[in-house]
Amino acid sequence: MTTSNDSFESLSRIRCKQLHSKVMSAEKAAELIPAGSTVGMSGFTGSGYPKRIPAALAKRIREINDSGTKFKINVWTGASTAPELDGVLAEVDGINMRLPYQSDPVCRQKINSGEMAYMDIHLSHVAQQAWFGFLGKLNIAVIEVSAINEDGTLVPAGSVGNNKTWIDQADHVILEVNYALTEKLDGMHDIYYGTAIPPHRKPIMLTEPDQRIGVPHYVCPKEKIIGIVETNDYDRVNKFSEPNDVAKAIANHILKFFDDEVAKGRFPKNLLPLQSGVGDVSNAVIAGLQHGHFENLTSYTEVIQDGMLQLIKSGKLSSVSATALSLSPEGLKEFNDNIDFYRDKIILRTQEISNHPELIRRLGIIAINGMIEADIYGNVNSTHIMGSGMMNGIGGSGDFTRNSFVSIFVRPSIAKDGAISAIVPMVSHHDHTEHDTQIIVTEQGLADLRGLNPSQRAEQIIEKCAHPDYKAQLWDYFNRAKAQNRPRHTPHILSEALSWHDNYEKTGTMKKED
Amino acid sequence: MTTSNDSFESLSRIRCKQLHSKVMSAEKAAELIPAGSTVGMSGFTGSGYPKRIPAALAKRIREINDSGTKFKINVWTGASTAPELDGVLAEVDGINMRLPYQSDPVCRQKINSGEMAYMDIHLSHVAQQAWFGFLGKLNIAVIEVSAINEDGTLVPAGSVGNNKTWIDQADHVILEVNYALTEKLDGMHDIYYGTAIPPHRKPIMLTEPDQRIGVPHYVCPKEKIIGIVETNDYDRVNKFSEPNDVAKAIANHILKFFDDEVAKGRFPKNLLPLQSGVGDVSNAVIAGLQHGHFENLTSYTEVIQDGMLQLIKSGKLSSVSATALSLSPEGLKEFNDNIDFYRDKIILRTQEISNHPELIRRLGIIAINGMIEADIYGNVNSTHIMGSGMMNGIGGSGDFTRNSFVSIFVRPSIAKDGAISAIVPMVSHHDHTEHDTQIIVTEQGLADLRGLNPSQRAEQIIEKCAHPDYKAQLWDYFNRAKAQNRPRHTPHILSEALSWHDNYEKTGTMKKED
Repeated sequence: MTTSNDSFESLSRIRCKQLHSKVMSAEKAAELIPAGSTVGMSGFTGSGYPKRIPAALAKRIREINDSGTKFKINVWTGASTAPELDGVLAEVDGINMRLPYQSDPVCRQKINSGEMAYMDIHLSHVAQQAWFGFLGKLNIAVIEVSAINEDGTLVPAGSVGNNKTWIDQADHVILEVNYALTEKLDGMHDIYYGTAIPPHRKPIMLTEPDQRIGVPHYVCPKEKIIGIVETNDYDRVNKFSEPNDVAKAIANHILKFFDDEVAKGRFPKNLLPLQSGVGDVSNAVIAGLQHGHFENLTSYTEVIQDGMLQLIKSGKLSSVSATALSLSPEGLKEFNDNIDFYRDKIILRTQEISNHPELIRRLGIIAINGMIEADIYGNVNSTHIMGSGMMNGIGGSGDFTRNSFVSIFVRPSIAKDGAISAIVPMVSHHDHTEHDTQIIVTEQGLADLRGLNPSQRAEQIIEKCAHPDYKAQLWDYFNRAKAQNRPRHTPHILSEALSWHDNYEKTGTMKKED
Repeated sequence: MTTSNDSFESLSRIRCKQLHSKVMSAEKAAELIPAGSTVGMSGFTGSGYPKRIPAALAKRIREINDSGTKFKINVWTGASTAPELDGVLAEVDGINMRLPYQSDPVCRQKINSGEMAYMDIHLSHVAQQAWFGFLGKLNIAVIEVSAINEDGTLVPAGSVGNNKTWIDQADHVILEVNYALTEKLDGMHDIYYGTAIPPHRKPIMLTEPDQRIGVPHYVCPKEKIIGIVETNDYDRVNKFSEPNDVAKAIANHILKFFDDEVAKGRFPKNLLPLQSGVGDVSNAVIAGLQHGHFENLTSYTEVIQDGMLQLIKSGKLSSVSATALSLSPEGLKEFNDNIDFYRDKIILRTQEISNHPELIRRLGIIAINGMIEADIYGNVNSTHIMGSGMMNGIGGSGDFTRNSFVSIFVRPSIAKDGAISAIVPMVSHHDHTEHDTQIIVTEQGLADLRGLNPSQRAEQIIEKCAHPDYKAQLWDYFNRAKAQNRPRHTPHILSEALSWHDNYEKTGTMKKED
């Protein structure tokens, strides 16, 4: 999310003169954050996070820790950020509690060693739980913006996330004004100020994915702003890789499924608003749509990736609603060069609206999300490696899956050169239960679980999705479980259900010896 | 749901004369249901189910099966029914696929032996998946009503459930007009006709629990009605038992929690609309509220039980919204004798509205649900015994839990005289994940999991909720799991996680020998 300007005219984007006195260095701003405080930072999928203050704060924390005093803060964000935020703060053991989502290697290592607390929470639950007071007091917001208007309102950056809530809830606000962002972002955001705490909530009157229901800027009382740092830095570089054959095979199964459902009259001809997670398979689905016959598509999702720009450009995709841009350098160039074309086709919303159960159910989203593993009964693990190690987090997958028109989970059928099967007897951690998953897809095929009971689901999943190397082993488990003389609506052998994971850890493979 | 009239004037409640020709015996009506058909029946928590046709159908099925031909139907309802529906049809092996909820012993046995398919699905998902065509074609609706109006509209009975959807979706409708129901039920129902299939959905404009947004009667084209059976039978007898000491202890923990939250300013003084499951603990909470200091309470729930009538009578509870009455004979007498007092304080809605995520989240429900077991990380099993055997089903617990203001799960800390611990290392089936559960309560205490990571949750749950007989054993598991040298955000020992259940099945107790 940058332009190519290497220098900038200081104060030129701080149009509210009253606030000029608050401009300071990142180091000074970091000093305004006390030990033990809870800090709400901007940032969603490596986009729109503060670029300088976290590093300055990390430096300060390291110095203080070296002197023998413990200095930690709680860090809340929209979702994942970048090494410049999560990485540097985790590195110096500066984080006590982190929520709601992360994907940083240093963070992950600290979380999994027990050195850092991490609360993995549905993205649609975060803002409201902050408002309810369930997460404790938010002390300070550190928010990246692209400009400050004369009236003190704030022009958002490349992601919106929870920024509106952090600004509202924090006692004090520190801003990073990023001159690397194009000023033409102004007007592309839709900040909804209609939320309330029960019993004062009202219907959210959004009925179309491209409808605007808010205002383009954050509202923040000037007296709350205690510091402003000017920056000129790029967002984290997001890679866009061309989909490989496995991703393409998965995408083809999904596209065929769409065709079949349209033919049966169950999906509209232009489908329904698409949500898709980040990654290879998403890219492959989007590439498939690019070359397919569907027209007038819409998207109501979390993140806008490169492929969606192409889909807009070709005229196939009419509009995208999301909470963040997450583009590669090439994607960003395309976006910046043609922003006047894209600006009325892209809306960036607060994440409580992008992920709102009310809206996802009303709009009837087709939800496509990645996973770590699924079991033969359709339970899905999105977060944990071998039952204990946190990967990233559940993110919005639960918000979309539970409330979608149809929920699809995707991944290759094997990992680690075949040592791991993505289809297992029982998932080692449950993020989405049998009640919520409808379609499971691997490169092997697509299992349609709608209207089925557990045993029928197992037959579909093993037959359609499992890798040939693991099919016999899965049938063997399922058949032996079914043959037991005990209640068996969901046939399991308790002493074996998690043995595949245990075997992998002990022997390096889930494959049983013959 | 009865009056005491033992006889009735035939046709007197079938005020649409055009339909008199459709009146027939239950046996004749049962002959209108072909083998292999999918039948949507009324019924929710033993209330409002057809009383005569299922038995006649079961007789017919038994005769046909005895002659060597297989005769099965698919049965969809609102929720659980009674022996006169689920029991008789299961007994003759007449059910192929059953959804979405049951609690019948014969049904359960057939489901767990693999003889009957059962799809356990969120109650809020049923009507929409029928509309989407995801569950297959609905052929016939068999619906209990309390009367037929002159214009052919139908006065609902003691439950609404999915009746509106079954009538809309089925090709043919068969009615049971039950003269045992008081005619004064007319006007207490609110049948919402504003739902649609995406992309045509609109906001549901309900903002208060006692607000009416629909019409009092079902609309059904007369030509769809192929049979009418007159009945005069009581609903299933629902027992009301006085709460025991364990239930009272659980209720007291919840009431203290309410007090604490009000004191902290996080809950309004009159709380928020209450949802509570069926059973002892619910009764105990209601009894506690009866003698407590909260005023102007409201309830937005599935089922109205005896205790709620008392709470309305005492003036503590202003209104109740539900989809079914489920009263004991004494409760029913109280209701019938004072129906003019209760009629503007009780609303019976379609279950897609009583359980709608949009409305549950907007209203900010306090959700209290029973469970089979919870694990130390806050995952909850609501449905399965020892990982494989179906008990009843998830019902609406997922609808309320995920979208609630605060979600509470309750049960005694032990079962089977202490051979089973309700708190285990890992639940043997996951219906509600760590992401959705906030408060766990046993008679031992209340664990508040809000804002905590898995290890912090484990400390709370073991310390506050586990029975003293199992505390040391749980600490031992957790401490050894934490001490492992592997990623351990959620510390588990894979080879032991389900061993408590396995031990119970093999040795008769979850207790480890010293």
